[in-house]
Amino acid sequence: MTDSVLRHLEDSKAEIQDRLFEYLRIPSVSTDPSYEEGMRTARELLKTRLNAWGFRNVQELDAGGHPCVYGEWLGAGDKPTLLIYGHYDVQPPDPVDLWDSPAFEPTIRDGNLYARGVSDDKGPSTIALETLRAFLAVEGKLPINVKLLLEGEEEMGSATLEANCLQHSELLAADAVLSADGARWRADLPTINIGSRGNCGLEFTVTTSNRDLHSGRFGGAVPNALHVAADLLASLHGLDGSINVAGFFENVPPVKEEERDAFASLPFDEQAFFKDLEATAYGETGYTTLERLWLRPTIEVNGMWGGYTGPGTKTVLPNEAHAKLTMRLVPGQKPDRIIEVVANHLKQRCPQGVDIQIAENRGGAEAYEVPKDLPLLLAAEQALEQTTGQKPRHVKVGSTLPLSDIIHRCLGLHTVMFSFSTADENFHSPNEFMRLGAFDEGFAAWVALLRKLGED
Amino acid sequence: MTDSVLRHLEDSKAEIQDRLFEYLRIPSVSTDPSYEEGMRTARELLKTRLNAWGFRNVQELDAGGHPCVYGEWLGAGDKPTLLIYGHYDVQPPDPVDLWDSPAFEPTIRDGNLYARGVSDDKGPSTIALETLRAFLAVEGKLPINVKLLLEGEEEMGSATLEANCLQHSELLAADAVLSADGARWRADLPTINIGSRGNCGLEFTVTTSNRDLHSGRFGGAVPNALHVAADLLASLHGLDGSINVAGFFENVPPVKEEERDAFASLPFDEQAFFKDLEATAYGETGYTTLERLWLRPTIEVNGMWGGYTGPGTKTVLPNEAHAKLTMRLVPGQKPDRIIEVVANHLKQRCPQGVDIQIAENRGGAEAYEVPKDLPLLLAAEQALEQTTGQKPRHVKVGSTLPLSDIIHRCLGLHTVMFSFSTADENFHSPNEFMRLGAFDEGFAAWVALLRKLGED
Repeated sequence: MTDSVLRHLEDSKAEIQDRLFEYLRIPSVSTDPSYEEGMRTARELLKTRLNAWGFRNVQELDAGGHPCVYGEWLGAGDKPTLLIYGHYDVQPPDPVDLWDSPAFEPTIRDGNLYARGVSDDKGPSTIALETLRAFLAVEGKLPINVKLLLEGEEEMGSATLEANCLQHSELLAADAVLSADGARWRADLPTINIGSRGNCGLEFTVTTSNRDLHSGRFGGAVPNALHVAADLLASLHGLDGSINVAGFFENVPPVKEEERDAFASLPFDEQAFFKDLEATAYGETGYTTLERLWLRPTIEVNGMWGGYTGPGTKTVLPNEAHAKLTMRLVPGQKPDRIIEVVANHLKQRCPQGVDIQIAENRGGAEAYEVPKDLPLLLAAEQALEQTTGQKPRHVKVGSTLPLSDIIHRCLGLHTVMFSFSTADENFHSPNEFMRLGAFDEGFAAWVALLRKLGED
Repeated sequence: MTDSVLRHLEDSKAEIQDRLFEYLRIPSVSTDPSYEEGMRTARELLKTRLNAWGFRNVQELDAGGHPCVYGEWLGAGDKPTLLIYGHYDVQPPDPVDLWDSPAFEPTIRDGNLYARGVSDDKGPSTIALETLRAFLAVEGKLPINVKLLLEGEEEMGSATLEANCLQHSELLAADAVLSADGARWRADLPTINIGSRGNCGLEFTVTTSNRDLHSGRFGGAVPNALHVAADLLASLHGLDGSINVAGFFENVPPVKEEERDAFASLPFDEQAFFKDLEATAYGETGYTTLERLWLRPTIEVNGMWGGYTGPGTKTVLPNEAHAKLTMRLVPGQKPDRIIEVVANHLKQRCPQGVDIQIAENRGGAEAYEVPKDLPLLLAAEQALEQTTGQKPRHVKVGSTLPLSDIIHRCLGLHTVMFSFSTADENFHSPNEFMRLGAFDEGFAAWVALLRKLGED
């Protein structure tokens, strides 16, 4: 017998699609001030809908940036309270020429829905919101207490999310956070993401003399800033990609055998992975590709430049060279300490008489791990098993999800990602899409999860 | 008793200055087509003067670029024939804002004459031409046979000089070449330049995957093109600047003790040299600064770039990195072979699965050395000793003088530099100047040298 809420969702497919299309047509680009109107329109639409659907205390939380939209339904007594997260801002549509259909005109082709923001995060958050709407419409209540936090700055580094969390810590108090953002690893395997790497970064400038010099008149007797910078960068790694920085691994526990075994048993086509990139496997000896991506920290040079970079030749001996580094962190590593040990390495390696200036990036996040016994995690696993017939596998992501870190630091809450977009859906690129089938999978899983949380 | 030609030069100082100023006002910039008119005006002025002064067979030698101006006076019978070289093109005046007086308005301040091209090479070649004029005016003849070759492409890499030399090898046949171009090492010490380093160059591109990747999602398991490029560059040198490339030193004889002794006894204020650059001495162990600059080959990175180089951060894992290298060569090294050994080193060091593309620069020149027993060199030394009272010291230059190499390859002739500009006179920079005193020193030396060559 089909769940009544799920049947309602099935029956109202057409109007749900209309509402989603209306939402997708709003160009709510947060990074570009010329889209200010689109940002406001998206907030008004959300507030109108939440009020109409039965949410209370609907308001904007404004900490000086694009406000968050907040709403709550707290009629479930002593049942758990979940803070459900999504974001209404999207990436810019550029380069617009590369879109096969207009970025802000939702278009269905070959079982996919194309539009800017459909995968990140208007589609996934629509699954969450429409599920809540359906519960309220069919049953007049939700199985648990719910607070909604819909952010407007996810695509610009969550600039004021921390301030909002700190200012509204009582309003946002909950038992755990369920995020409708964050893509699934792949579409054909039920997975739950249990952790992400942290990050921190720095930029350095090496100066070897007070001006660019002629490579003939001075070469061989005066240091070259690019030689120094290249040596500094090369000194960070062994030839196999292992990291040669004193203190970098302090407090990093050895990789757990059970985690290695779990990841080793995941269906992962390594050959296809590298073929798609036209790259060759590379990295620290003794680790698999997934372990290198999910369990080991990195130092990456994101950019480097110096001297003459135009067409043809210029026989200059460059006096300045620059490099930008970011480090991906694993549990045990603190951003400040990692900046410190990398900076110390660079300073010690830099030859005497050569000036090195190091500027630390603002921000930085620790690695994040969901406790494996978190009730919300266990419930999410059970809901997925129930709706897919398979026990979901644990995965991690190599990138950094500032949300989990901010929420944990400011509200003391753990976050479970429960999104139904997939990592290959061109978010942040032209032709962003979402698989239409993911909506049905998502509705089923969200209904099951909310019911399960209400039972306990 | 003063030399009659020298006295004539002294007496006609005012008109010589008028002629020089007229020449300096012509914006004969070869690299920028919008100065075409200035280039033509300079050629017409030179041809008119040469004809008026008694030169014969005055013509333009056109090999498809800016033509050379040629003229000859061959009335000295079986006396030697000298090919006298200078160039009428100048560097662009940019950045014009940094000039204290207009680039093409000659201005005298504090004993210096300021104008674009005054030091390189309109001043020094005026010394040569006016000396010849004075001989013809006072004595009706020159002490030796003279052919003049006034180039119009020196500031753009002598693009068609080689073609001109090959097309006109009979017309340009001579016993040796005397160049009015090429700066003196310093103004306060009589020196003769007896050699220059050669050069060759290449650019390489390293590609590690088919697109830029996200440093979080792929970092640690996919190679980073900038890490590879930094390692390749770092592998070229030891930490002291010594070169670690197999085959680079083949056929390079050890530095001669007599040359080391000669350079060691030169008055050279090393501390002032590095203080001016705000740099620290650096280079191959076991060599002095002058030896590193004049006697040892180099590999210099002129430019390197890859990844994100704008403001702020971008967590990209760059898939492409680029570097431009030039090598300065010493006698025994051939440009083609050096390109080959450096390219081999890079290819062998490049990790498997990473693509490296190497593009060789066109051109390249061998190191040049004047034979120490060349009669023209000995005569030039004697002339300088006679007019300065000091035996001139031998020096070299670390940079590359394509002229000497082209002339030697195409005409089989050796070149002696006999210029009276000085290396610190801002040629190629704003506020180019020439010391006024250098004109008197130059006239005296040129008169003495021509007389000496006529005596033998």
